[in-house]
Amino acid sequence: MHSIGIDIGGTKIAAGLVSPDGEVSQVKKVPSPAAEPDLMAETVVELIHNLQRENQVDTVGIAAAGFINSERNEILYSPNLQWRHEPLKTRIQQQVSVPVSLENDANAAAWAEFRFGSAKNADSMVMLTIGTGVGGAIIDSGRLIRGGFGIGGELGHIRLVKNGRQCGCGQRGCLEQYGSGTAFLKAARKLATSDGPAGRRLRELASENGVLTGAEVSQAITEGDVGALSLLRELGDYLGQGLASIVAVLDPEICVVGGGVSIAGEKLTEPIYFSYLNNLPARGYRPELSVVAAKLGNNAGLIGAADISRAESLQ
Amino acid sequence: MHSIGIDIGGTKIAAGLVSPDGEVSQVKKVPSPAAEPDLMAETVVELIHNLQRENQVDTVGIAAAGFINSERNEILYSPNLQWRHEPLKTRIQQQVSVPVSLENDANAAAWAEFRFGSAKNADSMVMLTIGTGVGGAIIDSGRLIRGGFGIGGELGHIRLVKNGRQCGCGQRGCLEQYGSGTAFLKAARKLATSDGPAGRRLRELASENGVLTGAEVSQAITEGDVGALSLLRELGDYLGQGLASIVAVLDPEICVVGGGVSIAGEKLTEPIYFSYLNNLPARGYRPELSVVAAKLGNNAGLIGAADISRAESLQ
Repeated sequence: MHSIGIDIGGTKIAAGLVSPDGEVSQVKKVPSPAAEPDLMAETVVELIHNLQRENQVDTVGIAAAGFINSERNEILYSPNLQWRHEPLKTRIQQQVSVPVSLENDANAAAWAEFRFGSAKNADSMVMLTIGTGVGGAIIDSGRLIRGGFGIGGELGHIRLVKNGRQCGCGQRGCLEQYGSGTAFLKAARKLATSDGPAGRRLRELASENGVLTGAEVSQAITEGDVGALSLLRELGDYLGQGLASIVAVLDPEICVVGGGVSIAGEKLTEPIYFSYLNNLPARGYRPELSVVAAKLGNNAGLIGAADISRAESLQ
Repeated sequence: MHSIGIDIGGTKIAAGLVSPDGEVSQVKKVPSPAAEPDLMAETVVELIHNLQRENQVDTVGIAAAGFINSERNEILYSPNLQWRHEPLKTRIQQQVSVPVSLENDANAAAWAEFRFGSAKNADSMVMLTIGTGVGGAIIDSGRLIRGGFGIGGELGHIRLVKNGRQCGCGQRGCLEQYGSGTAFLKAARKLATSDGPAGRRLRELASENGVLTGAEVSQAITEGDVGALSLLRELGDYLGQGLASIVAVLDPEICVVGGGVSIAGEKLTEPIYFSYLNNLPARGYRPELSVVAAKLGNNAGLIGAADISRAESLQ
């Protein structure tokens, strides 16, 4: 029994065939028609039909970046995809012969890590996805916690700093303004344009076009550059502060860290872990979680979406 | 089928008979042997045997203030009850003929409100209990969220203010240092000893013994005293800020506010609600929760504990 997983992002749509063991094959990526929401369902249906042509498929799971309603048939709002009250699942289901399910992309990725990746031995986890923003997802006792209206797990929007940095959500001081890949790159660029010795290597790497890229910062980290590593520790410190509050609420066994920056592995997860410990309420009087990097990379969203659609069809 | 509910607090133990509809009778309260943990099991067993003598009882549910392990047989730690790794359930079960269950007191109270009180029409809720500290509990899709190690829902310990007021948990700036009944009384005493006109009525009420009591502050609120009401709005403002972060994580349909201060009713829940709205990430792009006062008062803990023990015996 195979399922199709689809991951709709702001720049591309990824589709693939997913086995019951979470193995992916035939992954295909196409540009996301983000500016034309009406084209989105069409593009997704075409990807599904192409995969169905040569494969026996039982269910389809779709992950999308956005607020999904509690019935999970509608995207209430998506900042990157220009949707308001878009009945995406209904539109796609009308044109597809097998059951279709819709899930928030961060939830889908966390589900994949929970079933097949870094958290497969845990019952309760949170996931932080460090990318353009800070995405989040929650699993408790083996169940995704989606919240009463479907918008739970927006862990990047707990407040870290009162009257802090302006956030795209309309508030100030949200965790994602301090702990995202965007915030990290901004800090690296600032260090690179400073005069101090800590920015030397970053300055060199940026010299060709003048503006530091994410790949160049990754290179500095890989090389063990002191300046880049200090920024990574600062990033981890912010994320650990947020994690400590999240643990007060959810007390998970494990925190899985995904997204682009998580390829730094322990260079990121260790600073998060130690900051979490330093900020943990009632430290010493309670069990402590582990912090680990995600394993499934960019395919996590489509793997999780496919697995959720399969699980639901078996209910 | 009736169950016994027991609520173990720092100053007293309450016991009562609870019907399947959540009706309580034969409530009895005895002083809590908080300083002698060994006496606690004995006292509780005596209360159970007394109630069993004249009633047919099928299960016993015990609520206790403390961290309870995920197997729910042991109290890992209780700041008020001097327990560390106390196998309370096992001790009591050995002397009682019907199934015994153990639950955190805030979880038990929330469960009672969810089944029989202010949240009985909801599927997903959080509860904030405004007392000595700020207690919390979470229900999502009809299930208590206890966390991977059993210590979820400690909503009073999310961080509200970085480098803020020292908290008993070892951290600084926890919500309960700003939103608890203790913090509220402290603010009222400060206002009463100030020279300003806003503290006039509080000064008068405190005049007999010089130090303002909780009951006197309640009286000022009932009278509509401007000074006391402004402190209540400030309390609500802090709690609403915390609630906005909690909503980013859990997105519940309803927030139930319990504890001593909640007898102020809408005078407290409205300031919490408006502060929550002002601090809500992505406000305007998502459904909004309601904030209501608890209905079941001091018996909520024992009602919830009894109902949980009944539900578990039916599984």
